[in-house]
Amino acid sequence: MTAPTAILQVICPDRPALVSELSGWVAANGGNIRHADHHTDAGAGLFLSRIEWQLEGFGLPREAIAPAVSALAERLGGEGQVHFSDATPRVAIFVSKQHHCLVDLLWRTRSGELPMAVPLVISNHPDLEPVARDFGATYVHLPVSATTKAEVEQEQLRLLAEHNIELVVLAKYMQVLSPGFLERYCGSGSHQVINIHHSFLPAFKGAQPYHRAWERGVKLIGATAHYVTEELDGGPIIEQATVHVSHRDEVDDLIRKGRDCERLALARALRLHLRRQVMVYRGRTAVFD
Amino acid sequence: MTAPTAILQVICPDRPALVSELSGWVAANGGNIRHADHHTDAGAGLFLSRIEWQLEGFGLPREAIAPAVSALAERLGGEGQVHFSDATPRVAIFVSKQHHCLVDLLWRTRSGELPMAVPLVISNHPDLEPVARDFGATYVHLPVSATTKAEVEQEQLRLLAEHNIELVVLAKYMQVLSPGFLERYCGSGSHQVINIHHSFLPAFKGAQPYHRAWERGVKLIGATAHYVTEELDGGPIIEQATVHVSHRDEVDDLIRKGRDCERLALARALRLHLRRQVMVYRGRTAVFD
Amino acid sequence: MTAPTAILQVICPDRPALVSELSGWVAANGGNIRHADHHTDAGAGLFLSRIEWQLEGFGLPREAIAPAVSALAERLGGEGQVHFSDATPRVAIFVSKQHHCLVDLLWRTRSGELPMAVPLVISNHPDLEPVARDFGATYVHLPVSATTKAEVEQEQLRLLAEHNIELVVLAKYMQVLSPGFLERYCGSGSHQVINIHHSFLPAFKGAQPYHRAWERGVKLIGATAHYVTEELDGGPIIEQATVHVSHRDEVDDLIRKGRDCERLALARALRLHLRRQVMVYRGRTAVFD
Amino acid sequence: MTAPTAILQVICPDRPALVSELSGWVAANGGNIRHADHHTDAGAGLFLSRIEWQLEGFGLPREAIAPAVSALAERLGGEGQVHFSDATPRVAIFVSKQHHCLVDLLWRTRSGELPMAVPLVISNHPDLEPVARDFGATYVHLPVSATTKAEVEQEQLRLLAEHNIELVVLAKYMQVLSPGFLERYCGSGSHQVINIHHSFLPAFKGAQPYHRAWERGVKLIGATAHYVTEELDGGPIIEQATVHVSHRDEVDDLIRKGRDCERLALARALRLHLRRQVMVYRGRTAVFD
Repeated sequence: MTAPTAILQVICPDRPALVSELSGWVAANGGNIRHADHHTDAGAGLFLSRIEWQLEGFGLPREAIAPAVSALAERLGGEGQVHFSDATPRVAIFVSKQHHCLVDLLWRTRSGELPMAVPLVISNHPDLEPVARDFGATYVHLPVSATTKAEVEQEQLRLLAEHNIELVVLAKYMQVLSPGFLERYCGSGSHQVINIHHSFLPAFKGAQPYHRAWERGVKLIGATAHYVTEELDGGPIIEQATVHVSHRDEVDDLIRKGRDCERLALARALRLHLRRQVMVYRGRTAVFD
Repeated sequence: MTAPTAILQVICPDRPALVSELSGWVAANGGNIRHADHHTDAGAGLFLSRIEWQLEGFGLPREAIAPAVSALAERLGGEGQVHFSDATPRVAIFVSKQHHCLVDLLWRTRSGELPMAVPLVISNHPDLEPVARDFGATYVHLPVSATTKAEVEQEQLRLLAEHNIELVVLAKYMQVLSPGFLERYCGSGSHQVINIHHSFLPAFKGAQPYHRAWERGVKLIGATAHYVTEELDGGPIIEQATVHVSHRDEVDDLIRKGRDCERLALARALRLHLRRQVMVYRGRTAVFD
Repeated sequence: MTAPTAILQVICPDRPALVSELSGWVAANGGNIRHADHHTDAGAGLFLSRIEWQLEGFGLPREAIAPAVSALAERLGGEGQVHFSDATPRVAIFVSKQHHCLVDLLWRTRSGELPMAVPLVISNHPDLEPVARDFGATYVHLPVSATTKAEVEQEQLRLLAEHNIELVVLAKYMQVLSPGFLERYCGSGSHQVINIHHSFLPAFKGAQPYHRAWERGVKLIGATAHYVTEELDGGPIIEQATVHVSHRDEVDDLIRKGRDCERLALARALRLHLRRQVMVYRGRTAVFD
Repeated sequence: MTAPTAILQVICPDRPALVSELSGWVAANGGNIRHADHHTDAGAGLFLSRIEWQLEGFGLPREAIAPAVSALAERLGGEGQVHFSDATPRVAIFVSKQHHCLVDLLWRTRSGELPMAVPLVISNHPDLEPVARDFGATYVHLPVSATTKAEVEQEQLRLLAEHNIELVVLAKYMQVLSPGFLERYCGSGSHQVINIHHSFLPAFKGAQPYHRAWERGVKLIGATAHYVTEELDGGPIIEQATVHVSHRDEVDDLIRKGRDCERLALARALRLHLRRQVMVYRGRTAVFD
């Protein structure tokens, strides 16, 4: 329906004329820019740019764009990448027993709100298999224990490779991925695992955030969607949401109210990521929305 | 403290290479872009651009920039204007008896949050004179009645001219300005009067919105900051805010809660306007924040 | 899991000692109150009370409670009703083609968040039949046209009676129910139809609210869950929600963002209704949450 | 304008018939209840009640009400207190250099939104003296250093006693009060010091929360109004607020946006406290609004 576009993301040291240089390159090849966003982090001396333009009528064939952008970014002393809006990234969703995020993501995918495909759902519990099946995804049940974790992660990695997965979404997976898994899967510096944490980070890192929020007597609870890094609940934040609670709310009410925060924050973060509106640098994100 | 910048705003028919052309012009003159935002209204076939760059080291003297931008915009078949971040627009605030917006704006001005000067406060009541005086503004009390309105507006226009006022803010003025006033003051198409309306427009246009909101039994109330046009409460919206209410809230509580919405929405809208982050076209705004 | 409770709702003319009289009646029968909320509408001279107490150990058998409460309310010159927390109201959901509210309600029902049963889904389109079937609901496809509307409504009424339905939820049904239907279904003064309207009422009543919101250039959009009355989009409001939009949002984006508002507002309103936390009087609601 | 009321607050072990007993006592003395709110903390086995009734026509003289409520609470094995709505608590505000909370509180007091008197403002800096003077408050400048802190606190305590202060509000005071001060001022268990902390507690306890929020790259910032206890930023929370931030916001922008959160959260918390809508138990609050 919508005409396909190319999206470049460039990070490089800040200096004058960068906007002109990048947009000039698009124009020189006959591209019609639909969105152009930039950010300068003055403290870090960095320039970030995201430019989206229509592919129709563009002077370079698709396969020549990425190399050209890389060369351009290299000339600027930085790094660049290109995505195409009509690509459909293959995404694996990791879950435990809770269905609300999984169901939400699958329905948003079906309705076209999330431009992705979900061929694979992995869980340490069997419960959500019917949901995955309804949406045509392979469901793999891999129970995890302290002793089997390393082995299970090997199998997870194998499945990700087999299904040609680009991005992993931890939709209330409730298990910590090992540094080894992350290194093997994400490689150096790339961000290919998104988690939803059920608190307003950095408050209540770790386990049972709703119980601890209740203990503390907070008046708002929240959820945080972030890229996963080796530091637990410490990765770059993409999106956060909060909702009011009162003294009348028991822990179960916090969990219930939190579910809506969780699925909204995760869905928004995922949409931003899939539309290539997120750029990560120095442990933080620039979100061009 | 912050290095001064120039800000251009251009609206023109959409076509390829506009971002490149505008940013290229800045770069060709040695300008270092700090913010560049664009918007394409596909339905209207219009392109809007706001580019902000550092004046230091720019190749053109200040007085030459506006003519150059106008010439550039003309070549593109559109219109352009330039502002400088270190200018301090002279603003008149119109009030009736309620102090909350006036006090808020004056304090935000003093603390540097609103880059403006307020030499003049005009009211149809004498009550707020001490507030204006505390902040060094001339306070002119001009009672308004149906028979004197035309005459009073003449005097208001005279005062605006005398104090060299660029922008009028209706901070709960509770009087409707005549089309004649607006035409004389704003000229053709420019937007130099901002109003705060105490409802979530277009709900509850006109008088006594809180009373009508209570009657209707709404669960949220709101406030709307907008440019004033000849159509009552129908001008381009800059900012809106809402707050929850309950059955326990009487009309007086709605008014009290609404005051916080009003001053927040007005202060945000005014800051956006003063930093030249708002562009108006076809009865609506693009807000580049 | 939770011990069952009785919930009384009484509306009567305001006078001293009403709280004491009602809570005294509960105590005299050995009831342990878990929640007691009251509201006085001073302008209307009305007192509203909702008291919830544990059934265990209560001195009256279940079938004797409703008559006793009615007698009590009558002595106070008002009206009363009783509900039991372990009842499971039978609810019919009316839909058109959009799935987001239906899916949301069915999942929340399955997870226990909405204490209801959904034996029946009625639609003027065939699209959502698989969804209803997955959740064990009978799906009846009844196309509606101007000429068949009266006949279709007769069939709808017959189905509601056949399935012993207590409450109808219009989950984006996109059809206006006739006064005749409402009178036949809701009887005099009772409120048994809940609708989700896709705007912040009273703004944008009627058709295509998102298109009109875009035209007006609002900066927030909203959704309103309300009881249906004969006045279109004019019934008592239960819950409202809003979300920010920007100039970058096309009509389709407003529709997409609005869906989250819609399903949240509807789910909250429905939960409040089902837990008997809503009382309706004089065209408005008191919501005891 | 509003008829004066009495407000009782009782905390006692939970058992049946407490609502009836308390409201029955009010009714037996001819009181007309305007608000009655209760809360049962099942885990703690505690019952909390707040009942507000009109003084006009009440059978006991004012001076007899507090003893009667104490006796009643004692019979229930708990504690009770009484306040009168037409009392005007004397409040001291502690500030450093930042004006936004002080100005906000003084204006809200003047307009009647906060039912209190502010005879005393204490600061470790001289800057805000003119503000206090404009509102008729005594301003005492007491510089604080590590070596003089104990001595300064003695003087602060003396001033609080001299001005007959009931409540201290730390409106961005930026100094930690010693346990000795708190013990001397608040006595055992009572809560007479309210602080506004510029983060969403428990995130970013302690110094420079906005700088640390920026470092972490959060997408929301917040403010927390809480009672002060010996545990730094660990006292019972009354109110919290959050606001969205983006990658474009520098630390200064976080501080600016945070100011609106701070003053709103503090003003709401203070109003709730002054209207005796807050009850504290076990390190947390029940807020009856």
